[in-house]
Amino acid sequence: MPMGTSSSVESLYAEVQQFYAHHMHLLDAGDGEGWARTFTEDGSFAPPSLPEPVVGRDALAAGVHKAAAALSETGEVHRHLLGMVSIRPCEDGELKVRSYAQIIATPRGGSPRLHLMCVCDDVLVRVDGELKVRARRVTRDDRHA
Amino acid sequence: MPMGTSSSVESLYAEVQQFYAHHMHLLDAGDGEGWARTFTEDGSFAPPSLPEPVVGRDALAAGVHKAAAALSETGEVHRHLLGMVSIRPCEDGELKVRSYAQIIATPRGGSPRLHLMCVCDDVLVRVDGELKVRARRVTRDDRHA
Amino acid sequence: MPMGTSSSVESLYAEVQQFYAHHMHLLDAGDGEGWARTFTEDGSFAPPSLPEPVVGRDALAAGVHKAAAALSETGEVHRHLLGMVSIRPCEDGELKVRSYAQIIATPRGGSPRLHLMCVCDDVLVRVDGELKVRARRVTRDDRHA
Repeated sequence: MPMGTSSSVESLYAEVQQFYAHHMHLLDAGDGEGWARTFTEDGSFAPPSLPEPVVGRDALAAGVHKAAAALSETGEVHRHLLGMVSIRPCEDGELKVRSYAQIIATPRGGSPRLHLMCVCDDVLVRVDGELKVRARRVTRDDRHA
Repeated sequence: MPMGTSSSVESLYAEVQQFYAHHMHLLDAGDGEGWARTFTEDGSFAPPSLPEPVVGRDALAAGVHKAAAALSETGEVHRHLLGMVSIRPCEDGELKVRSYAQIIATPRGGSPRLHLMCVCDDVLVRVDGELKVRARRVTRDDRHA
Repeated sequence: MPMGTSSSVESLYAEVQQFYAHHMHLLDAGDGEGWARTFTEDGSFAPPSLPEPVVGRDALAAGVHKAAAALSETGEVHRHLLGMVSIRPCEDGELKVRSYAQIIATPRGGSPRLHLMCVCDDVLVRVDGELKVRARRVTRDDRHA
């Protein structure tokens, strides 16, 4: 994608949204390896449920597999939806992206529920032309200070 | 819209999103004919609640009128919201679009609830320059295998 | 942003979405002054809960502060998410924008709930190159006629 042109911000918006859609489809399908590849090799994810960030693709993929196994056990489907995505391009080419994340859980044969409401703060970078998450920090609204 | 230019993917994203916003506003307003015209003439919709797809604009419009009458009876408003919209342009110009669909129901005087969580798989085509749904398949998260 | 070019509609879509993301982040953070500056100086907001519209930045900011104080009292976090954003550019350069608004409330230590489902009708204008809300009218789905 051409950067620094007059249309860069607009192109970036569509690209970031497509990136996230693909990223969340992989996650919700339980494709740990596919999802991990949307992070940089040293990508980190600081979820609210763990004391330390998860770092690196192997650990990221393992986390997805573990979560998918737990969902399979309980017969639930989870969906991650990002909204109100605000992109701030930085001078070094990094993108700081803040969004709201709804996690929706649906039991087999039951009604969907809004499981968690979170804020997602990402640092996106470009590797060989493709966007990757370098760092993610997620905070839960139910645990706000 | 100019296709095949460097900005085509980005233009497409905005166009698809605007198409869906208009499409869902028509549906939720009970405008069966308006909504049916956002499908091709032979457009098909395979909802999870029916054994066979609904095919053609007359049948599509009739489905909207029937649903609107039922909602009017119960005093509920339904809203269809698509999120995490992933667009895959194909060589023949078709667009394969996968998204998450939240259906939100609000009774008069009551609290809104997340009624259904679905995945929507569309084939969009261009007719006289305008996007149309040629085929839609919706699967409900509560009925996953 | 260049207007009237072939990419204007697509650029506009990204710009409007970024505007709304920033706008809602300010609101949900309780930044009354920051939020009020995303309205024109004579901007008006007709919420469903008040008999008269709120007009002007001082009144808009005061409304945010009052709401933030009430939320702080009850220990809840509110998030405003717009979806299905449909933009209609008018001849005078105004944008008429209709969207669906989910308001999600999360109590400290509790589960998030869909608090309100609304339709948001905005008139956006450009002031010194920046989008601003000139008029907003919000209707609640639970109070539909």
